[in-house]
Amino acid sequence: MDQPDIKDIANKSGFSKKENSFLLKNIRPMGSTIADVLVRDGIIQQIAVGINDPGKGMATFEGNGAILLPGFVNAHAHLDDNLLGVPWPRNEVPASGIEDMIAYSREVWMGLGLSSRVQSVRQVRASIAAGITHIRSHVHIQPDYGFEHVEGVLQTREAYKDLIDIQLVAFPQLGVVSDPDTLKMLEEALNRGIECVGGIDPSSRNRDPVGHLNAIFGLADRFGKEIDIHLHEPGDLGAFAVELIAERTRALGMQGRVTISHVFCLGMVEDPYLDKLIDLLRENRITIQSAGAGGTPLPPIKKLVESGVTVCIGTDGVRDIWSGFNSVDMLDRIRMLAYRLRYKRDDEIEMLLELATNTGARVLGDQNYGFEPGRKADFVVMPGTNLKELVIDQPKRTYAFKRGVLVAANGECLIPV
Amino acid sequence: MDQPDIKDIANKSGFSKKENSFLLKNIRPMGSTIADVLVRDGIIQQIAVGINDPGKGMATFEGNGAILLPGFVNAHAHLDDNLLGVPWPRNEVPASGIEDMIAYSREVWMGLGLSSRVQSVRQVRASIAAGITHIRSHVHIQPDYGFEHVEGVLQTREAYKDLIDIQLVAFPQLGVVSDPDTLKMLEEALNRGIECVGGIDPSSRNRDPVGHLNAIFGLADRFGKEIDIHLHEPGDLGAFAVELIAERTRALGMQGRVTISHVFCLGMVEDPYLDKLIDLLRENRITIQSAGAGGTPLPPIKKLVESGVTVCIGTDGVRDIWSGFNSVDMLDRIRMLAYRLRYKRDDEIEMLLELATNTGARVLGDQNYGFEPGRKADFVVMPGTNLKELVIDQPKRTYAFKRGVLVAANGECLIPV
Repeated sequence: MDQPDIKDIANKSGFSKKENSFLLKNIRPMGSTIADVLVRDGIIQQIAVGINDPGKGMATFEGNGAILLPGFVNAHAHLDDNLLGVPWPRNEVPASGIEDMIAYSREVWMGLGLSSRVQSVRQVRASIAAGITHIRSHVHIQPDYGFEHVEGVLQTREAYKDLIDIQLVAFPQLGVVSDPDTLKMLEEALNRGIECVGGIDPSSRNRDPVGHLNAIFGLADRFGKEIDIHLHEPGDLGAFAVELIAERTRALGMQGRVTISHVFCLGMVEDPYLDKLIDLLRENRITIQSAGAGGTPLPPIKKLVESGVTVCIGTDGVRDIWSGFNSVDMLDRIRMLAYRLRYKRDDEIEMLLELATNTGARVLGDQNYGFEPGRKADFVVMPGTNLKELVIDQPKRTYAFKRGVLVAANGECLIPV
Repeated sequence: MDQPDIKDIANKSGFSKKENSFLLKNIRPMGSTIADVLVRDGIIQQIAVGINDPGKGMATFEGNGAILLPGFVNAHAHLDDNLLGVPWPRNEVPASGIEDMIAYSREVWMGLGLSSRVQSVRQVRASIAAGITHIRSHVHIQPDYGFEHVEGVLQTREAYKDLIDIQLVAFPQLGVVSDPDTLKMLEEALNRGIECVGGIDPSSRNRDPVGHLNAIFGLADRFGKEIDIHLHEPGDLGAFAVELIAERTRALGMQGRVTISHVFCLGMVEDPYLDKLIDLLRENRITIQSAGAGGTPLPPIKKLVESGVTVCIGTDGVRDIWSGFNSVDMLDRIRMLAYRLRYKRDDEIEMLLELATNTGARVLGDQNYGFEPGRKADFVVMPGTNLKELVIDQPKRTYAFKRGVLVAANGECLIPV
């Protein structure tokens, strides 16, 4: 297949990584009242009403009353196998179970001959344009892919390291128990610089939940890494996996260092059991990541948050063969979650926005994020009446800044290719 | 509240209702191979490869290989109470049941002091920009609204009658049994030109399913009108209503003239009973309309279609106080339905597009719709590899034509305000 050149993305003039001091006037932090923000050397100096123009050639941006949010945090991506910028290949998967889709998406990906380096750059640039400043991405670790996915995403991370924070998870989509090569590859991926150990459906993938989880937790313990496990298993089978994960988290003292992604089972079990699972999650400070999904119950995000469980939000794979319908935009993801969970009230949408910003940054371990003097100037500006209207209208991002550098304007990534 | 002037929508120069003959070159009907389309006096003359330029000043549009679809049909709208172009009012509804939402949305609508005339114009213009050529819209009939909604939408329909086909349903959102004034208002609405009789949740709204349905069917029979009933009732209660509706359809000989909208219950009952309901729907030629929904099971559209039941698709209320998250674009609606119903294959998406075009036009009674010589030139052009990619990327509509008149280009409605 012809691959469009990524240089077709307009190469904007005037971009400079060194310009990271400016005054942003007339914005409304979190949709509140009008203020100005002064940024020096990429650090927030002051947020106040009517800051005087510091002059001396410092750039000034006019916000016109737009809303200022901290940068979006996409806590669950698959940068290495999207189909952005590629003509849509027909999806003719014969069935739609997870196993069928894993096999089918591998087959299509291999057939297209795409590059994880090129595709991850495409998603990173689209993410920057959408005001995303942080991504946690799961990278495929499996023998038939070799290290093409790992190296592609590591190269992209290096190239964009000043412009977006990317944390990587070594993701053994095919399991680890049945194939010793995968476990060796996971080790090698951690040695090459991947930060977290991934896992997937411990009972259904390799028919050996204890074997799978012990391998993953053992690896994370040995390398001192965090864990983020895909868990699609339904009902009581998924809940059993949550229990096993919580037991290992406690045993290894990994509280606060384990995330479970998707966790549809939390939307399926009955209330008394759900309450028990919630206690386990809270006690072991296990984070739940939800990207939504169309045809399955979802974790009850509001109940989890109100119960003291940390919840973050991601896009999951975007424009990929799984369905193709996920977009890179976290506002679109929040809309989908609100739609599925029947969140209509503005305060419910504000909660989801909090998870997609401040909470997500905490999960990704960024201590320097947020609207306080001394923190990094990672933020995004867009027009809107209030926070819910941002999710309804999904306006182009007026400006996006990373460490004080203007990385996107009017919905376009400004970074030269 | 300040209402933005609808004249702020750019008043394009050069628009003419009289120019309805043209040659459209290099498009791909339904995503197939390249062809040209010749239109004279608003009627498709020829669809063929390499049609010669007819000259004599006839306009020519270059398609550049874009996809040509017949105009989208939105089979379920609420033109009279959207919040398009209005700053988002906070939603602080205390609960989220249907009854709560009906009460709350009335309260907000009344408080905002908006005009159904202005709001329906906004939605009609946005719909035209999105390539929609036909709308069925439910209009609120209830004593506290008087005829403001009816008159507002009737005026909008008259003003845009050459540019979009609008069919109206008199919609007694509060029921008809408990309030004799509503029944009188329904009659009056039909006398003023509304084509269809609406209804809603016959058991739960007024606690008298037979009274509700007999009133509605009696009215439709007396006036010779079609019926379109909102049915949100779950499980066996909803299924009971389907049975009652089918009995009355048969008794009055109204086969092919009754639609049930939403019908979540079809996604909730067990298979043997579902099969019985499907038989009732097919035998009585009752149409099912689905607009999707986030937090409830949905009718199994593919199974219904494969069983010979007619299914059409609508947006439901857009940017309204119910959730705010529905958009006017039928491609967005198809994406939502695919997401909810786990339709991933391209042929499943193509089926949904068929429902949102050809099937919808048949439900709305348009005999002159479709890609055949002699039919009206109601169609829309947009770039894409294939039909599913349109739903994934939702590109701006390159051109939209209604009866051969160019009504939108590059995603904007061209009609002067």
